[in-house]
Amino acid sequence: MSASVIDPAKGFVSFVSSGPGDPDLLTVKAVNRLGAAQAILFDDLSAGQILSRVNPEADLVGVGKRAGRPSPSQDHVSKLLVEYAEAGQHVVRLKSGDAGVFGRLEEELTALRAAGIPYEIIPGVTAASAAAAAAGIPLTRRMTARRLQFITGHGATGDLPDDLNIAALADREATTVVYMGKRTFANLAEQLLEAGLPDDTHALVATGVSTPDQELFCHTVGDLPTVLRAMETTAPVLILYGPLADSDIPHKANGKAKSDR
Amino acid sequence: MSASVIDPAKGFVSFVSSGPGDPDLLTVKAVNRLGAAQAILFDDLSAGQILSRVNPEADLVGVGKRAGRPSPSQDHVSKLLVEYAEAGQHVVRLKSGDAGVFGRLEEELTALRAAGIPYEIIPGVTAASAAAAAAGIPLTRRMTARRLQFITGHGATGDLPDDLNIAALADREATTVVYMGKRTFANLAEQLLEAGLPDDTHALVATGVSTPDQELFCHTVGDLPTVLRAMETTAPVLILYGPLADSDIPHKANGKAKSDR
Repeated sequence: MSASVIDPAKGFVSFVSSGPGDPDLLTVKAVNRLGAAQAILFDDLSAGQILSRVNPEADLVGVGKRAGRPSPSQDHVSKLLVEYAEAGQHVVRLKSGDAGVFGRLEEELTALRAAGIPYEIIPGVTAASAAAAAAGIPLTRRMTARRLQFITGHGATGDLPDDLNIAALADREATTVVYMGKRTFANLAEQLLEAGLPDDTHALVATGVSTPDQELFCHTVGDLPTVLRAMETTAPVLILYGPLADSDIPHKANGKAKSDR
Repeated sequence: MSASVIDPAKGFVSFVSSGPGDPDLLTVKAVNRLGAAQAILFDDLSAGQILSRVNPEADLVGVGKRAGRPSPSQDHVSKLLVEYAEAGQHVVRLKSGDAGVFGRLEEELTALRAAGIPYEIIPGVTAASAAAAAAGIPLTRRMTARRLQFITGHGATGDLPDDLNIAALADREATTVVYMGKRTFANLAEQLLEAGLPDDTHALVATGVSTPDQELFCHTVGDLPTVLRAMETTAPVLILYGPLADSDIPHKANGKAKSDR
């Protein structure tokens, strides 16, 4: 999609997945869109070094969302997106990780469809893939980790979603990744152990994946609630548990595994 | 990792995720590694246009794996990888999609660890993210698709894995993606319907995602076995079912949704 084919009456929105944080984990296509956009709407979580790769003449519009701070309502973000597009611009809506994974993409797609604004989605590297890669482990294994599942620890109300499928999440033969799980994992862990997941199931905790602030620690599902309570970060925390979550990285809360950058 | 810091006695292996097929869905880091590598070991499935982005002086080593044809054993691939690295080279092991997702990464990591060869993993865009993006849908939604899960339809023996967690896979409030599911989905669907998944659950079928051969179709879990039997492709088929697998793309088996390339 080049600017020259954009209908000035409708504009065009590229949902661009920013990947986990390292600008070198943007796709080539994402870099191209960031370089061509006339306006870029970004969340705090997806920005950082990535904004160094954008068209220097683009309007940069922060639309909030930082852990622990109030953020603009989703309705407000959708409204802004429509307004920028209706000005006939090529708008990039930057989303952290892969836009389709816990990115609240649905709400914004619905608003664009209602307004008749054309769009595209550029997929990206989700945080789970980046965390596993940084830890030197795969997410699946033929015999012992044949199912891979992702949930968010931060539901519509900010709490752990109700009615989670605990039996599915307590399956020992799956790799499970909990996005944004710091505050609610203690509650989840209690339900998992009650459902039969062994408390010595390996668990990996990751923050700042692929950035200079990357930290990775190995624990167990049983000891994780205590560890998480002691962590002071306000950055999103990703938790990965299952048969593969054991790696060569530090097995203590004050260790630090640097990224390869 | 630059060639200058590679130990000539040990070499170095970069596991590079190739993404779904479009070379523009490589990450910047992947492009850099492909440009710097001295040897590149690739599967047929991960190659295509992507090999146009490699160092023209690199050794290109095809290690087989094409649907329906016999391929070199995994042991043979691991052995080759160790041999190339032990020649002191910077070796790229190219893996389709995200290397950590159904990429048989574990076997090759184990061989490198045993040989004391250093490595890194460059994460990438997995086919599920690319297929959903191409269809214009997210993979998760706050209230109705809060869990996302991936399985392979092609287990260690080539058949549907035994002992699948059918209750987890028949959950109506999850988005489920079956990688390489063409041959075995009929068997899976039978088990899903028996476990209570409604036969009108939306399902998306995708092949050649992000390439010029991309095809996307909407169906239901109930009618999919018949549709898959009629498909003649030997390319990997990805199946996505759940509340979000309904999109604006053709709802018939002979339609064709082109990618945006």
